Order: sequence, then C-alpha cells, then structure tokens
Amino acid sequence: MSADTPNGADSLLEAALDAGVEVCFANPGTTEMDLVSALDRNTAIRPVLGLFEGVVTGAADGYGRMTGRPALTLLHLGPGLANGIANLHNARRAHSPVVNLVGDHATWHRGADAPLTSDIDAIAGAVGSVVTPASVDDLATVVQSAIATATGPPAGVVTVVVPQDLAWTGTTIAAPPTPVAHRVESIDEVAVSAAIDRLSTSPTTTALIVGGDGLCDAGVRAASRIAAATGAAVWAEMFSSRIERGGGLPTIRAVPYFPEMAIEALGAIEHAVLVGTDAPVSFFGYPDQPSRLLPGGCEVIGVSAGGHPAAAALWEIADRVGAAAFTPIAVERPPRPSGGLSTKTLGAALAATQPEHAVVVNEAATSGNPWLGMSAAAPSHDMLGLTGGAIGQGLPCAVGAAVACPDRPVVALQADGSGLYTLQALWTMARESLDVTVVVCANRAYRILQVELQRSGASLGPASERLMELDQPAIDWVSVGRGFGVPSVSVDTAEALVTELDRAFAEPGPTLIEALL
Amino acid sequence: MSADTPNGADSLLEAALDAGVEVCFANPGTTEMDLVSALDRNTAIRPVLGLFEGVVTGAADGYGRMTGRPALTLLHLGPGLANGIANLHNARRAHSPVVNLVGDHATWHRGADAPLTSDIDAIAGAVGSVVTPASVDDLATVVQSAIATATGPPAGVVTVVVPQDLAWTGTTIAAPPTPVAHRVESIDEVAVSAAIDRLSTSPTTTALIVGGDGLCDAGVRAASRIAAATGAAVWAEMFSSRIERGGGLPTIRAVPYFPEMAIEALGAIEHAVLVGTDAPVSFFGYPDQPSRLLPGGCEVIGVSAGGHPAAAALWEIADRVGAAAFTPIAVERPPRPSGGLSTKTLGAALAATQPEHAVVVNEAATSGNPWLGMSAAAPSHDMLGLTGGAIGQGLPCAVGAAVACPDRPVVALQADGSGLYTLQALWTMARESLDVTVVVCANRAYRILQVELQRSGASLGPASERLMELDQPAIDWVSVGRGFGVPSVSVDTAEALVTELDRAFAEPGPTLIEALL
Repeated sequence: MSADTPNGADSLLEAALDAGVEVCFANPGTTEMDLVSALDRNTAIRPVLGLFEGVVTGAADGYGRMTGRPALTLLHLGPGLANGIANLHNARRAHSPVVNLVGDHATWHRGADAPLTSDIDAIAGAVGSVVTPASVDDLATVVQSAIATATGPPAGVVTVVVPQDLAWTGTTIAAPPTPVAHRVESIDEVAVSAAIDRLSTSPTTTALIVGGDGLCDAGVRAASRIAAATGAAVWAEMFSSRIERGGGLPTIRAVPYFPEMAIEALGAIEHAVLVGTDAPVSFFGYPDQPSRLLPGGCEVIGVSAGGHPAAAALWEIADRVGAAAFTPIAVERPPRPSGGLSTKTLGAALAATQPEHAVVVNEAATSGNPWLGMSAAAPSHDMLGLTGGAIGQGLPCAVGAAVACPDRPVVALQADGSGLYTLQALWTMARESLDVTVVVCANRAYRILQVELQRSGASLGPASERLMELDQPAIDWVSVGRGFGVPSVSVDTAEALVTELDRAFAEPGPTLIEALL
Repeated sequence: MSADTPNGADSLLEAALDAGVEVCFANPGTTEMDLVSALDRNTAIRPVLGLFEGVVTGAADGYGRMTGRPALTLLHLGPGLANGIANLHNARRAHSPVVNLVGDHATWHRGADAPLTSDIDAIAGAVGSVVTPASVDDLATVVQSAIATATGPPAGVVTVVVPQDLAWTGTTIAAPPTPVAHRVESIDEVAVSAAIDRLSTSPTTTALIVGGDGLCDAGVRAASRIAAATGAAVWAEMFSSRIERGGGLPTIRAVPYFPEMAIEALGAIEHAVLVGTDAPVSFFGYPDQPSRLLPGGCEVIGVSAGGHPAAAALWEIADRVGAAAFTPIAVERPPRPSGGLSTKTLGAALAATQPEHAVVVNEAATSGNPWLGMSAAAPSHDMLGLTGGAIGQGLPCAVGAAVACPDRPVVALQADGSGLYTLQALWTMARESLDVTVVVCANRAYRILQVELQRSGASLGPASERLMELDQPAIDWVSVGRGFGVPSVSVDTAEALVTELDRAFAEPGPTLIEALL
C-alpha cells in the first residue's frame, strides 16, 4: 500500500492521531493485520505489544488514568476482547478513558459462523458503549467520536468494532475531519450551596466523601482546607482511580473495606456531601450487614457524579466556606526498617525509599495496608487503586503508567496471587525498558479469601486449603521474572529489601523484587 | 456449618455429585466462599485450583472432551467469568460439556452496584446458556438440569449463576432429586439413505466430511471402511475436538486451513455428506475468497449436526454400503531424527517417541504441521485441536485431559506465542503432579501472523515487526517453567529433543521441553 491509496485502516489511525492518540497497546490477530500494516505507515502512534489481552487493556487503563486521554487497544475478535474484559471493567469503574479497536471478520464473512465468530457486542457492552462503522468512509468519524466519548467527562470505555473489509478497503477519507470538542461539565450550583450550608451549620454531623478527580493534588488541598475550616470529616472513596498523597498533603482516609468498620466510621453522619463519587456501598454482601454504608435517613448531597469535575467543585466550596490557604503538613519520612520481613517492615521500606513523584500502583491487597499508612509521610506520589475489584490489574496498569509518564518512577506494589493473573506484563516492561519496580508481596496464599472464610464462621478444610494456598509448589518469582527478561531478586529481610529498592530506584528499566513474607 | 444444617451450597454440590460430577476446576473469590466451604464437606468432588480463570475453563474443556461428562468450574463474578470466556468459546466450538458455577453478589446486594457488579448474563450468553436459580431450594434441580443440558447431545457450555445468599442459606433440599436422564438423539434415517445413495452412485464426486464423535476410533474405522468400499474422499473437519489417530488407523486429512487450498481440495465435489459437522467455511474472510468452501451448487447432505451421534451414523452407512470389515493399515514408526531442530525434526522426534495411548493437545499452530503428517505412523493416540481459534487453549486443555485420564500420558504440543496466554497452567500441572510433557515450539514469533501479513501483500514494517516478534527479549521458558515448579529443559538439536522426550515419557509428573526452532 502506498501513500496515494490509503485504506480504511489508514483513515482510522490518521483520525485517531489527529484527535490526540499517541499509543496503541496491542495484541493483534489476523483480522487486525490491516490495522497493523497501517501502524507501519503511521509511525507517530507507538505500538506496544502485550502477550495477553489483559495486559493490553490494563495498560490502557493505567495510561488513561495518568494522562486523562485514551490510548487505543488492538484486540482480536470476541475471544481477544473477552481476555481484556476484566481490566476494562476496572477501567470503567475508574472512569478511565480507553478506546478499544476490535477487529472483526469481514462483513460478508460474519454469516458463515467461522470458528472465531462470537457476540462481540454483548461482551463489549459489559464495560461500555460499542459502535460498528457502517462503511469504510465512516471509520474516521466513528473513531474520533469514540475518542471524544471515552475522554468525557465522564470518561469511559468505548469499543469500536472494525470489520476487516472496512479496514482493507481504499477510501478517499484520508484527511480526518475536525476533532470533536471535548465536553465541559459545569458544577451543580444548587448542590454546592446545599453542601456549603451543611458543612457550615452542621459540621460535626456532615461528612465530605471525595472521589474521581477530587483526589488529585488540587482536590486534596481543597478538601483539607474545607476540613480545617469547618471541622467536618473527610473521606476518600474506597478504591480510588488515582489519588495524590505524601509530600505534605494530609491523608484522606478511604472508606473502610469491611462493612462493619465502614458503618462504625460513618455511623454518626446525618449529611453526606459526595464530590466526584457515589454513596458508598459494601464491596460484598454479608449476612446481617446492609449494602449501603451511610446510616438510614442520612441526607445525601451529590455535588458531582462520574468523577468529574470534583476538584473544581471542592475549590469552590473551600473558598465559599472561607477556608484559609492550604498549608502543607510537616512530615518526617519513616526510617529505614531492619529485621525480618513483614507487611509492616515491607511498607516501611517502601515508604522510606520511594523516590519523589513516584506512581504507585497498589494491588497489594492485604499486604499493602501498612504501606498505606506509612507512605503518608513519603515524598509526593500518586497511587492507582483497584477500582473494579477484578484482580490482575497491577502489573498491566504499571506498564501503562510507565508508558504515560516516562520521567516518573513507577512502583507496582503487588500481591502475589493477583500478580499471577497477568504476569505477562513483566515481558512488556522488559521490552519497552519501562522504569517499573515490581515489589511482589509473596505470602503464597489468597490471604484475603482466608480472611473472608474465617469471617463467615467457617474453618479451613481440605478443599479450601487447596484452593487458597499457593505454596505447593511455591512460585519462584525470581525465576519467572528472569524468564520474562526482568532483572529479579528475592529478599527475606527488611535490610535487603531497602538495599534492593535503592538499587532499583537508582537504575533505569524494570526490576522485580520478591519480598518473602 | 454442621451436617444437620446443610445450606444451598451443600445442596448444589450433592446434586452435582449425584449427577456424576467428580471434579471442580476452580478460581474462587469471596462470593464463592460458601461453595468452597461446601467442597470441604463434600470431599468426593476433587477441587483443582487454576491461578487464572482461562486455565480453569480450558481444563474443564479438556476434561469434557476426554470423558464426555462435564466438570464444574468455579469462577468469581463477571470479571472472573470473562477471564475464562476464550476457552469456553473453544469448548462451545468443540461441543464439549462444561458447567460453570459463577458466584454472584447476594440477591439483595445486586442493586447497590458494588465494584465487582457487571452483566454476568451478557458475558455468559456469548458461550452458551445461562440460568440463575430463583431460590435456595432450586439449586439442586437447576444444577442437575445444567449438567444434563451440558452433557447433551448436543453437549455444550451452561453457566449457573449462584447468588451468594442462596449458597449460604439453609435448605431442606439435602437429598438431591433424581438425576435427569440424558437425551438420546436418533440418526436421521432420510439423510442416511440419501448419503448412502450418493456414496454408492456418485463416489468420485461425493465427499464425506466427518466431525464430532465421528472422529473417535469407531468413527474413523467406519469412515475408512466407507472410503474403501465406495472410493469417496473422506475429510475431517478443519479443527477437531478430539480425533483418534495412529496405531494403524488410516489418516483422515483435515479440510485445509487457507481457503484457496480448501477450494482446490474440494473443488470437484458435487455432493457433500456431512456427518457430525457443518459445511466447511473459511477460518477468516480474505479479499477475493468466498466464505463457503464447498463449490457453488454442491448438494449438502447433513446426517448429524452438533457433533453427535456421528460415529453411529458412520457405522450404519458403512454397513449399508456393504463395506468390508476394517483392516488396520501397516505403518512403520518414523526413525529417531538427528541434526538440527526444525519443525520437521521436532515432529519426527515426537512421532518417534510418543508412548502408546498418548493424548496430544495440539496448539502448535505453524510448528505442528510436520508432526501431524508423521504421527500417522505413531502408536494410537488422541489429538485435541483448537476448535474455536481462541489461543491459550493448549496448556489448560492438557491439564484437563491429564485430570480426566490419569493413566494416559499427555503431550502439550505448544506454540510459544499461544502458550504465553495461559502459562499459569504449568503450576497446576506441578501441583497436581500431572503426567504432561509440554513441548514448547519456540520460534519466538507470532509466525502465523507474519504469514498472514505476507499473504495480504504487505511487507513487515517497524510496527508489525514490533508486534509479531517475541525475541526482544527472548522468553526463557526453562526459567518460567521452573518458576512454576515444572522441571524444564531447553534443547536445540533433534538428538537432545529425543533424549528429553524419552526421559519425560519415562518419568511421572510434568516436564517442559523448550525446543529452540
């Protein structure tokens, strides 16, 4: 194909580039070959290969969280898309912008029910909107519209199904149309006034619960100003897409995970001001516990749903309650720990060594809690959380964050059980020389499930031991990491962990540290 | 929970056991904890843990193909199910019996839209039927009905959604109802008569295309008798769920993969007798190639769709065309190869060493073709194919076949690119001490995609090289395999491969051999 005979795939990529797309996380197959060829010609879009689709979609999520703009994914028909659904589910819950390109059979081949044919729309519909261009000349506008929709606000996941014959057919639509302007959402003035009233008149019974972009640096500062001025309690949503922490920012506690703890924490509230989040609900349903975590009769004032524009709303509220300017809190970085490795010394080691402006992808589950407390005194960093609860998000999300922010160190604080779902991400870290430090919290068990089983009143038996313990055989993460080309070490003392963290942060490229708990 | 207060989960498992279920491939989460606890009490059902859901569902597929009976899978809500969809898609295309148990939120918690909530029905519907019991007392009958439906004929994938409150609620339905009788499908007498007529009167223009259980030992014998008696050509469907080969059985060639080859092979056919399969279609749509591979105007006589009861129909046809008794062909096992490793010497090495009654899971893609030819002269074996084209099927399917057939050696003839999708299966092989010999055909590329790109007339450019080559860095399968607890070696000569295959087949438990091509 020469430049004077562009096809649908060329048209689509040129339109995407024109709308600001810079990266395509890909795991292509035969029906995507024309898009791959078009990437050969359109060299301004960076192709990044994942060896499994969950890596591809999780990376796009991480990229979207850090840039606010969608990357493309390239996925192979229904089964390839299905492999990526879990991390698209997390992206949907994170209000993260992602545009999937799913190659489909040629339009005239669909009716043949070839082996790979399946219901792409049904699968994609589980995580967002789906659109199939009707003709080759529609590809450019459809992808630009998808990019605008995905960017939001509210941001989200959009899947564009690309029948292969549309991709390979020549088109005169070589120059893309003007990109669609991004929407701007205004702040709900009535809700803001109500919020200000309750915060001012009933501060001891009013809680401010913040989510979405309200947890960026500006949002956290504004929320802290409101708390200081009014005395109201401030909470972060349970699992945040991205929260800025450390560097003198006060800690905003997250709504507790287990409902009995959340209910205890929120039990005295009569007015809840929700900014950029919905009313908190229990992660799971338990016998004798409610779904909704706010007390019955609690007034709910929703200032901004869908995660946006929460920071601006907080700023407005802070100014209007007469809050003083933000003053960073004085913090002292925790000392370097010594002795045996535990979740506590692990957390201390990371909090003591993590570099300025790190991006910490936290999928450490039960092992991450001590770090969460101690890192409040660490230098400024972003934390990306497991918004949708679909595990296997951490390593791929770290890939995407590192592609998005090549000048920032990325830490994947990773539970071992969850990490195994999408460990192929390690290879992409090696191939792309991404500056990711993977800390595997190796407790060799699905610890959270053991906790849940105990909570239910049951005791471990032969089956549950077999289904929750990962130590027969133990996974050798050093061997696995090296197999994927990532320099890897194992540590079993706090001193060794500190040494290896220092080394990892000083050097470019990926490192894996297996921390034996 | 004591024995005198059984709950819904107990009732479900007891009913499943009563209907013949012996194995539960599982990757559970919190909403499946009551089912896990019930597995602690119902020790007759064997729990097998997969570290990723694609391992779980692919194992259930392999188990179903070898036993004809469904295993249970245990999957966590919508995202866990989604992770297993690709291999359920393959199971659907294989007419393989599988019953998924997907734990869902408690019925009263669904409306809260908790983080893990998603459209389970839409995702499950892409691979089969879905049912949600209405009450705890329905669990036993619903699961038995699901087992009957999955068993068929035609066999298939059935998903039972189990809201957690139904699983944890006590029930008086402790003794399961009588199992539903399996349906028996009769042979279509009109079609059989038409088939016999064409095979007898127009043998040179009639082709017999066989699939489903027509490719078992009895079916292959009958098809060979028909071919010998009438002179008609016999073909196997392109990718078969399970085909018995070697040990004196004549080879039934599969319909070629690329449409131009298939059209050349089938171009002179005027009558197609389809037994246990549908009319062949092209795997993908290509410019200037049709979807349907039979010539225009070709008469199609469908004797048995849905894969069953094809062998019985073939037997009936063979007898009624007056075919002589089956005589095994004389074959000589290929000699042990020497020299460098190529797909040819790799195929020869395996064909020369594979033990009697091996189960060979063939996901070797381009690297497997020479073995396919040479293994016709190997001892009797079953080959399980990639029916749905969703890669990542080989290693999990080998797990399931090994669990199903502990007395048979299992070989996973595995392409490296495909193997990386679900490599976590290696760990289950180690944990369960499964007698699987994994031969990784390490060409370090998505070779089939490189072939497809060249076929499309395009040449490799910077992006396509980056998206199709797996050598920067090369994956060290020995390191990865050992990391998961599987004894692993790498070979680069035919002699070394033969030596390692001999060793692997002589020893129990899993072995991984990386064959550097």
